[in-house]
Amino acid sequence: MIRVASYKKDSVETYGLGATVVMEYLLHAREKVEAVILHPQFRSEDTIEKIRSLCGNDIPVSVEEKPFNILSKKENCFVICVISKKEEHIGNGNHMVLVNPSNAGNMGTIMRSCLGFGVRDLAVIPPAVDHFDPKVIRASMGAAASVRTEVFGSFEEYAARFPGNRLYPFMLDGSTKLHETVIEKPFSLIMGNEATGLPAEFSKIGRPIRIDHSNSIDSLNITIAASIGLYEATKGIDNDLQS
Amino acid sequence: MIRVASYKKDSVETYGLGATVVMEYLLHAREKVEAVILHPQFRSEDTIEKIRSLCGNDIPVSVEEKPFNILSKKENCFVICVISKKEEHIGNGNHMVLVNPSNAGNMGTIMRSCLGFGVRDLAVIPPAVDHFDPKVIRASMGAAASVRTEVFGSFEEYAARFPGNRLYPFMLDGSTKLHETVIEKPFSLIMGNEATGLPAEFSKIGRPIRIDHSNSIDSLNITIAASIGLYEATKGIDNDLQS
Repeated sequence: MIRVASYKKDSVETYGLGATVVMEYLLHAREKVEAVILHPQFRSEDTIEKIRSLCGNDIPVSVEEKPFNILSKKENCFVICVISKKEEHIGNGNHMVLVNPSNAGNMGTIMRSCLGFGVRDLAVIPPAVDHFDPKVIRASMGAAASVRTEVFGSFEEYAARFPGNRLYPFMLDGSTKLHETVIEKPFSLIMGNEATGLPAEFSKIGRPIRIDHSNSIDSLNITIAASIGLYEATKGIDNDLQS
Repeated sequence: MIRVASYKKDSVETYGLGATVVMEYLLHAREKVEAVILHPQFRSEDTIEKIRSLCGNDIPVSVEEKPFNILSKKENCFVICVISKKEEHIGNGNHMVLVNPSNAGNMGTIMRSCLGFGVRDLAVIPPAVDHFDPKVIRASMGAAASVRTEVFGSFEEYAARFPGNRLYPFMLDGSTKLHETVIEKPFSLIMGNEATGLPAEFSKIGRPIRIDHSNSIDSLNITIAASIGLYEATKGIDNDLQS
């Protein structure tokens, strides 16, 4: 029997829910997987075999129903993995920087886009949603296994550690249009909070960017703004070869 | 008292939930608004005044709690508008075309991006989620009030009605990369189902496009692919001046 408990920010473990997420962790962050739990009604023999084979002799696999009642009442989920929470450090290279992100689903979706465009380092400036939250991991569809995430004390601390990065804060009143800007590498694409955007002082940092859109909407959804930024910043380069 | 009932596909009315959505409908599709309901605990005097003023003498406004229990149990919502469902016809110009979209939230998010990039006509090819569903309207943040949506019998029917449109199906194995393609106007950006993408036969239609991404993810989220397509297709033109 594997013990699980409702996730809290101070839990030492987090959870990956669903076969897609579990497979991503086993394939790309196996060292973080502490256990795998299969639902007794899970019938996909192929997937079960793959999971058991990836778990080998050192990752315990149990078949039991109770953890699903605790962790995924409402969801259509037949596999869970228990993930150890380890702090990570991002490296040199291109970064996505989220300042005060508040929504778990959005953070996960942005992780997936980051991985899709080959940007594997994510900096988070608090206050922020907990990037270990199972909702983040689920929304990332397992991309959380492949994107390094580091929480900094402040934006200044982040910027001081990567003095060579070109800073591109995305702001509604940014002085240059994204499609007219050559994004130089290594870049930091900096996105603000979902409701309030970036604080005004970011207009004095690096080169503030705006994505042109009509006056009929207040702003683009944050996941969409971040993904358009990633698309534009990485186009023409091989997304599989980036850091 | 204004009568409301849980929304169903064959309901003659639908609902806009929340102040943002209600304001968008009153400002941009007032003729569709049949009534407005305020929650007795709604305390935002400014918003109430604006809503009452926009409703004038011909749109009834009531203050009652029961409709909120029926329509928005879980949500933090203090205003509802009752919207008449009228079939619309899209016009000539640039279009977003959704083939077999299955998720209400995604459809709403795509509507918001369409409006943001000045593409105000949305064609839907069934089977598809009901575009009148309050979940679509809510996810659109009211953009549904400003985007015309028409459901066609088939893709062939759609294509026959707009023979002048350049067709750009977005496919994982599309023959040309989005960032190397000049999207000619009037364009039809064609997106497939969230899980299965476009049927293979679309590779013979128009110019199939792929958005380059790394092999680390299966595909981009549909709302993100659609929005990147819109961004690229409309950049450099005034989003407020389009059809």
